Amino acid sequence: MEVDRNGLEVLSREDCLYLLASATLGRIAFTSRALPRVLPVSFHLERERILVRTARGSQLDVALQDVVVAFEVDDFDPIHHSGWSVAVTGVATEVRDPTELDSARHVPVAHWTAAGDEVVIAISTELVSGRRTTGPLATQLGPRLTRAR
Amino acid sequence: MEVDRNGLEVLSREDCLYLLASATLGRIAFTSRALPRVLPVSFHLERERILVRTARGSQLDVALQDVVVAFEVDDFDPIHHSGWSVAVTGVATEVRDPTELDSARHVPVAHWTAAGDEVVIAISTELVSGRRTTGPLATQLGPRLTRAR
Repeated sequence: MEVDRNGLEVLSREDCLYLLASATLGRIAFTSRALPRVLPVSFHLERERILVRTARGSQLDVALQDVVVAFEVDDFDPIHHSGWSVAVTGVATEVRDPTELDSARHVPVAHWTAAGDEVVIAISTELVSGRRTTGPLATQLGPRLTRAR
Repeated sequence: MEVDRNGLEVLSREDCLYLLASATLGRIAFTSRALPRVLPVSFHLERERILVRTARGSQLDVALQDVVVAFEVDDFDPIHHSGWSVAVTGVATEVRDPTELDSARHVPVAHWTAAGDEVVIAISTELVSGRRTTGPLATQLGPRLTRAR
């Protein structure tokens, strides 16, 4: 098992994609009006691309046109102090091909906001990295975490 | 109740700071080697500043020196399709004043990684915005969410 300088397990690309495929809510970082922003988004992983649906003209739609963005998914257990996170850096592009768009519109992405004219954004997954905290580390950190609360 | 174009409740700065104070895990967006990144971090809100502890020389330490960053905290209930998110854009600076540092080192920030030479980073909260999905919207979205699963 590969471990990083912080004692966290380093996940393979395969593990990262598996975890991405298991999640439905991620956070996306982008630039809006020259300032960095992070927002939660529902998504679906399809053919190693992260698909996000948003309303035409929304902050996300305006910001995510052919730019490099960061995307992150995680799941932490505050009781057992275990968990994982997967970070992606990729290019966001609007899906415009009619056939691809029709297919993308049917993927299971939950809508948290009201319906409207929709845009489908695909984020490539060229750069993927992931970390997991495991049993021994959780145990090792236990006293410190307990003290910190 | 103020509602945005997506039908989400707009939270006041006071509500946002209250929710930030209630959370312990957020996501921070920054630039590393000219690429955007998002990582989960434990944090503590103190005097309207977000305090993060990281290891000296870590990716976060290197990236978070006097730069504008985005920070986000959320909590979603996948069963009831309700939840909230708070997004912050602020300046990250290392806490260097000895008195302030001693105080900051004792705040309850959980450690998910192994111990080492620590750095405390403070993120200002000049720009704070938040959204909440409420009952009526959750109901309205219910069928779509169900269909999407």
